Amino acid sequence: MTRHKLESLAARVLKGDVRAAARLITLIEDGSPEALAEMDVLYKHTGRAHIVGTTGAPGVGKSTLTDALIGRFRRRNITLGIIAIDPTSALTGGALLGDRIRMQRHSADPGVFIRSLATRGWTGGLARASVGTIHVMDALGKDIIMVETVGSGQAEMDVIKAADTTVMVLAPGAGDEIQAMKAGILEAADILVVNKADTEGADNLKNYLEAMLGLAERSPQTWTPPVILTDALHDRGIEKLAETLQEHRGYLLSSGEIFRHRRERARLELLTAVADSMKNMVEQIDKNDYLNKLLDDFLSGRTGFRGAYLKIIERLANRFDENRTGGKDGI
Amino acid sequence: MTRHKLESLAARVLKGDVRAAARLITLIEDGSPEALAEMDVLYKHTGRAHIVGTTGAPGVGKSTLTDALIGRFRRRNITLGIIAIDPTSALTGGALLGDRIRMQRHSADPGVFIRSLATRGWTGGLARASVGTIHVMDALGKDIIMVETVGSGQAEMDVIKAADTTVMVLAPGAGDEIQAMKAGILEAADILVVNKADTEGADNLKNYLEAMLGLAERSPQTWTPPVILTDALHDRGIEKLAETLQEHRGYLLSSGEIFRHRRERARLELLTAVADSMKNMVEQIDKNDYLNKLLDDFLSGRTGFRGAYLKIIERLANRFDENRTGGKDGI
Repeated sequence: MTRHKLESLAARVLKGDVRAAARLITLIEDGSPEALAEMDVLYKHTGRAHIVGTTGAPGVGKSTLTDALIGRFRRRNITLGIIAIDPTSALTGGALLGDRIRMQRHSADPGVFIRSLATRGWTGGLARASVGTIHVMDALGKDIIMVETVGSGQAEMDVIKAADTTVMVLAPGAGDEIQAMKAGILEAADILVVNKADTEGADNLKNYLEAMLGLAERSPQTWTPPVILTDALHDRGIEKLAETLQEHRGYLLSSGEIFRHRRERARLELLTAVADSMKNMVEQIDKNDYLNKLLDDFLSGRTGFRGAYLKIIERLANRFDENRTGGKDGI
Repeated sequence: MTRHKLESLAARVLKGDVRAAARLITLIEDGSPEALAEMDVLYKHTGRAHIVGTTGAPGVGKSTLTDALIGRFRRRNITLGIIAIDPTSALTGGALLGDRIRMQRHSADPGVFIRSLATRGWTGGLARASVGTIHVMDALGKDIIMVETVGSGQAEMDVIKAADTTVMVLAPGAGDEIQAMKAGILEAADILVVNKADTEGADNLKNYLEAMLGLAERSPQTWTPPVILTDALHDRGIEKLAETLQEHRGYLLSSGEIFRHRRERARLELLTAVADSMKNMVEQIDKNDYLNKLLDDFLSGRTGFRGAYLKIIERLANRFDENRTGGKDGI
């Protein structure tokens, strides 16, 4: 116990300490300045894991699919990190919870690390926390890290696009075709999964997606996204999906595409860290009496909108100066 | 035509010019600096309209309800502005489009101004554009402005909470009870609507909601949210809802609560305008070669994460200084 206190969280994560990893992820979620220093150490030990992003509308069976994949990979002794992103305020996300309870059967397995991340009012923070969590799990030594989201927000889309392999899950019915097109996810997907293959319309949906993909122009060297039929609930098609994930990983390595994804994740993490700091500064202004006074002036007509806006910008500029010249927390 | 060119958009909006209003809303959506100056003029002429926020999961019939309310209010010669917020990337929002086509039957009526706003990758921008659009419609002279959203994002929630009256729409089935609780919208709702009252389970849902609301502690002076049964498709319960909206407006005026909402909107608009400017600055950094070089340094290990982060902050501080001392656009 004493030894642990002297060691940094990062050092403990690198030794495979799950509790240290969980603690560090919480610090990242909270936007703690402490996390920045720990991550500095961890980064040098990342880049080994295969990052798989899974997206799809609520009810298509993403969690059941993830659960089935975990079972499959664990039999081959492949370790996994699972990041489940809960959509903000989740008017549409209630149904996910039930499925995730199922996934918890793996939580006793030390080869599986499951973590849910919820948006706490600031979507940029979610993107930052997600990529940070990916890196912690990577440093912890997990072979495959799966990020699961309903993809109904920009931050979630950013995370999915920053994955090495993007899996789009659909199911027959519910106008998924239109949804996929509208979301522009079809273009970002490396693998398409038609789940609930036992349901009527599954073959039609597969044919439709293949026709859609055929219309897209592609250079001959690039990866052509396959459409895979699965029935996750009955563990059908999962082996094929697991193989295709490995194939795509091979393609990324041989083509050098993997470096582009790694760069994209670094870019996302840096920019969201910066955006997060800015957001914190705005919130600081929101918390103090300064804004109240400014609102009094604005609502009574003493200050115009542009005038009030410029006063806040002026104040933020001063705060930036403090940070630059070594302010108390650097954030 | 020539006269129009000489007049500001704001002046034209104040004369009731719908095309000028549409143009100004587009400028606001685009985050144009020009919009700030126009809004400065408009603000003095806002605060008259009743702002109603409507939220609920996809499929509960929000648009049908809005459509029915428009019909009801128009018969009393009350004018309306309708703002339909499309969720980002909309994996779950496809179904809304069909309903909104129905609403378009009112578009030939000069007493109804309908505008859809989509998130363009930045949720803060959506909140800013929504509140800005509310103010344009208010200045245009609309009596009631309805903002409709599926409420599945923080920005949308911010907008709904900044309305004078918040209407939460539910429908039997689909686990709405859990969704409402999880989203914390129940606490924010001033009126609860159980739509599809002809469907099995409607009465149960109403009883359930009333029991839930009964559990919440309230001071005796405050408004108790009523639960109203409607069947929007067959125009049932709409008169009751229209009356309750007016009643709530009366409560807001007599209690002085209306000023709190107006202040909340001003606060939201100011802070999102500032956050938007910051986001623009971060995007500028993302666009130029500076970030690429920084990523090279980071990925090769020459710079740590914290080091790269601080370099961006330093650069932003310089950019703030330029804005403060009269940079080219002030944004």
